[in-house]
Amino acid sequence: MNVRLDRIRLIQAALQERGWIAIVILNHDDYRYLFGTDRAQPRAIIPFQGPPELLAFSGEEPELRAALTEGEVMIFGSVGGQIHDVVGRLRELAEAAPVEWAPDGRHKVGIQQWFHTPAFLLDLFRQVNPGIEVVSSDPVMDQFRMIKEPDEIALLTEAQRIAGLGMDRARGLLRPGVTAHEIATEVTYTMMKAGADGTSTPIYVNFGIETCMLHGRLSPSPLERGELALIDLTPTVDGYCANLARTFVLGDPDERQAVLFDTYRDIVAAVRNGMKPGATVAQLDALAGDICEAHGLGDFQVYGIGHGIGLRFEEPPASTIIPPHKNLPLAEGMTVTIGHTVLAIPGFGGVRLEDVYRVGADGSDPLFEYPVDPIVAA
Amino acid sequence: MNVRLDRIRLIQAALQERGWIAIVILNHDDYRYLFGTDRAQPRAIIPFQGPPELLAFSGEEPELRAALTEGEVMIFGSVGGQIHDVVGRLRELAEAAPVEWAPDGRHKVGIQQWFHTPAFLLDLFRQVNPGIEVVSSDPVMDQFRMIKEPDEIALLTEAQRIAGLGMDRARGLLRPGVTAHEIATEVTYTMMKAGADGTSTPIYVNFGIETCMLHGRLSPSPLERGELALIDLTPTVDGYCANLARTFVLGDPDERQAVLFDTYRDIVAAVRNGMKPGATVAQLDALAGDICEAHGLGDFQVYGIGHGIGLRFEEPPASTIIPPHKNLPLAEGMTVTIGHTVLAIPGFGGVRLEDVYRVGADGSDPLFEYPVDPIVAA
Repeated sequence: MNVRLDRIRLIQAALQERGWIAIVILNHDDYRYLFGTDRAQPRAIIPFQGPPELLAFSGEEPELRAALTEGEVMIFGSVGGQIHDVVGRLRELAEAAPVEWAPDGRHKVGIQQWFHTPAFLLDLFRQVNPGIEVVSSDPVMDQFRMIKEPDEIALLTEAQRIAGLGMDRARGLLRPGVTAHEIATEVTYTMMKAGADGTSTPIYVNFGIETCMLHGRLSPSPLERGELALIDLTPTVDGYCANLARTFVLGDPDERQAVLFDTYRDIVAAVRNGMKPGATVAQLDALAGDICEAHGLGDFQVYGIGHGIGLRFEEPPASTIIPPHKNLPLAEGMTVTIGHTVLAIPGFGGVRLEDVYRVGADGSDPLFEYPVDPIVAA
Repeated sequence: MNVRLDRIRLIQAALQERGWIAIVILNHDDYRYLFGTDRAQPRAIIPFQGPPELLAFSGEEPELRAALTEGEVMIFGSVGGQIHDVVGRLRELAEAAPVEWAPDGRHKVGIQQWFHTPAFLLDLFRQVNPGIEVVSSDPVMDQFRMIKEPDEIALLTEAQRIAGLGMDRARGLLRPGVTAHEIATEVTYTMMKAGADGTSTPIYVNFGIETCMLHGRLSPSPLERGELALIDLTPTVDGYCANLARTFVLGDPDERQAVLFDTYRDIVAAVRNGMKPGATVAQLDALAGDICEAHGLGDFQVYGIGHGIGLRFEEPPASTIIPPHKNLPLAEGMTVTIGHTVLAIPGFGGVRLEDVYRVGADGSDPLFEYPVDPIVAA
């Protein structure tokens, strides 16, 4: 366990600046960011001062204590024990904190509220801590997490390289009669053999009309000659997420398929050209929209052409989850995808080509170059 | 898409009985239970009367409409569109419902609030529907979902059979120097080749002292001679979850390892003997506690020896998530695990042996018999 006290100290300074007494961590991504490892049920408190505190289940204490070079390990053997310990600890922190941090008598605690924070857990937290105001931890955490350090870029790049191996395998399997499940099985194996932890989202393998689906799945019917096949791979390495999507056609593309491919390639080129510090997803969407219009596909644009990526599969800017993020300016060191949205003609099919880029001072480069080579001999 | 109108009608009758205007479905398990398929972002409304309503993202409409033999398909192309449509639809339902259902002017809508309901989504729902009171959908859904139909038992049994194939593969790989990641890679491949969708939780492969972890992960260090290896597998088939855990020792067990194995086998036998309609997890825990005491391990018991399992990995009774469930009486047709908790000597190691049972009229039988055979030649 590689506790990142450097990051924890920056976060504590930000807590003190805002007058929050703590961040309570219930999520894998923040836990890994701060403690360098993961647990099935990550639980920790970052107080505004003093050492970080891990909450251990009974039996886990010696293991966690040995791993944690500094700081306390709180122990609980049951759900009730956990709740009791956390309530008591937050009360102590509230008493130790400046009173002016709680002008209405209630101190603030930041908790992440993305897809993996269960609603019932947050409700329970509020119920047992009536004196605490829960706020989103994003304003403290995002500023650090959005800008990737070199070690993080290396892991994201490795994840993207492994996604490329998976895509090679997928492409090699495309033939009439292949099932999406067979592709998912072989691709998962290829990527895990190469070192992936697993995938951050289920593998999407969509065939034919199902390539329209904004969120994919495994198509139930086998691939047929002439159909589109959309494959979206999200392996992770030490928790860092890749995102590589390619669309293929089994045989020569027909006219509409060709238009979709040409349009998407032009979208990627235009958006990449505009992806610089200061640009926003709204601006990138406008660039994509112009391309769609020029190809006669203006009616079919879906907004949100890119999203941040790191220890979460979607991070700020994540405009399709948090609409105001469409106006968040990009900055050097962010990692952002291009190709998040499918360009689909309803009832016909859709195309998506997605890669991860690092925003540089003057422009953006893909973490890993993977070819766009859509035609597969039938 | 095999819409289960029979189930939907029972649910609508329960909604009318309680005076709720709808259940809003944001979760995979309820979506699959009612619509016979899954989507990456499941979204549906079950109104108290009339056809069920799916919410489609733009581009998905023709596909969903073709699949849905009855009922409306609402369309939205963005997060904003989704919110607008749902708010409007709930307002219509509130106007159509008897006024006495809302004595304080606010109509009730049930939403599931388990691990996969994101806190931010529920907060957003409350914010845009101030006239609606959100309640847990459990009181309506649990009564139907806890009792498994024959088709469900068949899928749960198939998932458990596939878990057995995975465990065979894992056991065959145990040797000095093998890594947890290698085992997870090969086991995932074996189970997916056999038809598993994937797994409902990450595969746990814990070695040595890390077998103490209540919630497992992949141990970072390779297996050594004499160590315990705890493997917990959770493949799914059409969304139905398996749960099979076995603990092995590489070589002859030492005295403490032998005591842990003997104790756990006795726990399983005693709990199975007590697992009948009317029994509660609290009662089963008491049986397990007596065994722990008799073997001198009373200090190390963790409560929650079993949990329900189905389309969710943990379903009622789920006493380690929702403490009052420890007093929920079992009923014929429920599927419940025995062996949820690890029996661990902190700083030394732990054992878990978990299988899924169907509660019958007079006793419980495992869905699939898998051997307990802990010693692996080193």
